[in-house]
Amino acid sequence: MRRIVVGVMGGAEADAPTAALAHELGRLVAREGWVLLNGGRCTGVMEASARGARDAGGLTVGILFDDDPAAASAALDIVIPTGLGAARNSVNVLASEVVFACRGSGGTLSEVALALRFGRPVILVGFDPGDPFLALAGGEWYRTNSPAEAVAVARRCLQARGRIAAP
Amino acid sequence: MRRIVVGVMGGAEADAPTAALAHELGRLVAREGWVLLNGGRCTGVMEASARGARDAGGLTVGILFDDDPAAASAALDIVIPTGLGAARNSVNVLASEVVFACRGSGGTLSEVALALRFGRPVILVGFDPGDPFLALAGGEWYRTNSPAEAVAVARRCLQARGRIAAP
Amino acid sequence: MRRIVVGVMGGAEADAPTAALAHELGRLVAREGWVLLNGGRCTGVMEASARGARDAGGLTVGILFDDDPAAASAALDIVIPTGLGAARNSVNVLASEVVFACRGSGGTLSEVALALRFGRPVILVGFDPGDPFLALAGGEWYRTNSPAEAVAVARRCLQARGRIAAP
Amino acid sequence: MRRIVVGVMGGAEADAPTAALAHELGRLVAREGWVLLNGGRCTGVMEASARGARDAGGLTVGILFDDDPAAASAALDIVIPTGLGAARNSVNVLASEVVFACRGSGGTLSEVALALRFGRPVILVGFDPGDPFLALAGGEWYRTNSPAEAVAVARRCLQARGRIAAP
Repeated sequence: MRRIVVGVMGGAEADAPTAALAHELGRLVAREGWVLLNGGRCTGVMEASARGARDAGGLTVGILFDDDPAAASAALDIVIPTGLGAARNSVNVLASEVVFACRGSGGTLSEVALALRFGRPVILVGFDPGDPFLALAGGEWYRTNSPAEAVAVARRCLQARGRIAAP
Repeated sequence: MRRIVVGVMGGAEADAPTAALAHELGRLVAREGWVLLNGGRCTGVMEASARGARDAGGLTVGILFDDDPAAASAALDIVIPTGLGAARNSVNVLASEVVFACRGSGGTLSEVALALRFGRPVILVGFDPGDPFLALAGGEWYRTNSPAEAVAVARRCLQARGRIAAP
Repeated sequence: MRRIVVGVMGGAEADAPTAALAHELGRLVAREGWVLLNGGRCTGVMEASARGARDAGGLTVGILFDDDPAAASAALDIVIPTGLGAARNSVNVLASEVVFACRGSGGTLSEVALALRFGRPVILVGFDPGDPFLALAGGEWYRTNSPAEAVAVARRCLQARGRIAAP
Repeated sequence: MRRIVVGVMGGAEADAPTAALAHELGRLVAREGWVLLNGGRCTGVMEASARGARDAGGLTVGILFDDDPAAASAALDIVIPTGLGAARNSVNVLASEVVFACRGSGGTLSEVALALRFGRPVILVGFDPGDPFLALAGGEWYRTNSPAEAVAVARRCLQARGRIAAP
């Protein structure tokens, strides 16, 4: 049966609070039984969220910028080296049924924008690109600082799409 | 000799003032002798900017979302159907030495974010994704409402990179 | 721990013997504990190989041509809609540590060619693009009609790369 | 008016006869008034064909593997750095109305296979991937050793598609 895949995006560099938040988010995603997908590198939000999911026994998939697995996080089960460069950001987004966005910069912002453009719900977790950006992008988005609340929102999004049973 | 290629990004839908601005921008880009590159569709900022460049005798290149040229603007000299979908946004940006961004939504915002991420100067023309977004994205960007000033800024960016002679 | 991912390529249309072979190959791949990756559609070699792996309790990943999961095989655990069109063929290949190629046409041949170009071992299973093609492509390839032998060859390739222990 | 774009594919390494053939092909393509598109590097068939077209006053476009223009041929007018890696091969093919294939290896073979898969006529010029490959790939292809004949065939293909007037 097709598994639920959710993306966790965020910077290749992360300060301690952001890394802690990404780790907790990964842990909670895994506890829901969802597959965690991210950009696959061994640093920042990518490393922390994969590590969190792994620690909770979850399945992790990394979609790499590069064409070889050398830069991949050791906390990934499935490494997809794409060689696509920046174009892999759109794969990250299209492959995610819900996109969580933690603190990041240009790359993460491009993923938020593409997710909203292609109808993926975006849950901003401790990350705020600002009202003008969100108004221009349109689409379905949520802001929270709490990983637990973020996962609860994702659950409702997946229920609304018939991907998990309503409570 | 390698031509200077500049991108003009913006929405597939455009109101009359945005279309007029994009047309004028295309015209001025062509008058500088630069190649105008955009997403290639026959609507919105894409159509208007290509038309403006064409009216001034410039060379126009469209990088299409689709794998066939059916949706291409008739004002393009060179049509590049990519079949890449959203991933072509990163090609648009990497292929542009300077990126002009007119009013748009998620797709355009993803291009602005990627351009700033990959070191392309971005000139926002009558389009403002807001201070929080720009602070997070970092990179080199400018805001103006005037196509003439936008082109003057682009000229300085190209001079700073040694792509055109200093005045 | 990073799982071993192997690709099974082949046509979107398959006659009965080819489908049976792809199913058996999928089954044997799963029994090795390897993740099966393919192009993800619900027809031909893609459907048969995913079904075979699924029947043996394996993990299956599909890298889709399209930007939505509508065309995906129901035998996939993880569906990655890419929206990349033909460009997803290169992702298929780069993401596979070993590439099995069953009978197919242009798409499959492009994957064989790219795999050989990027150093992935290719095991042709009941599929022969001919000596001139293979001589031009170079790289590391094997021909067999037997799924069991194909998997034995893959095991040796993975041993030679240090990905599984030598016997 | 949309220009006719034809692709010239072939190896990044070329012996002297292959380079001479690619140069002559580029020259003849330019004399037809067609835009020459290739993979953009400064070596092998890419360099030679771009140089040939340039020497005849033609317009040349390079679709680069890399995300910066450093590796581009100096004989290109328009450089499109894509950062797509191997995935740019599918862009090369989709952007070409007719594909000429000179001697090459895996990369070139992938382009021939994709071109046949996506309905682009392929003209093999001094390059033969063999009957089994061509029978499997299907599609519309021609073999010749003469650049002049190759261009004559391309002219007929473009006439059949209504892209140039019948004689």
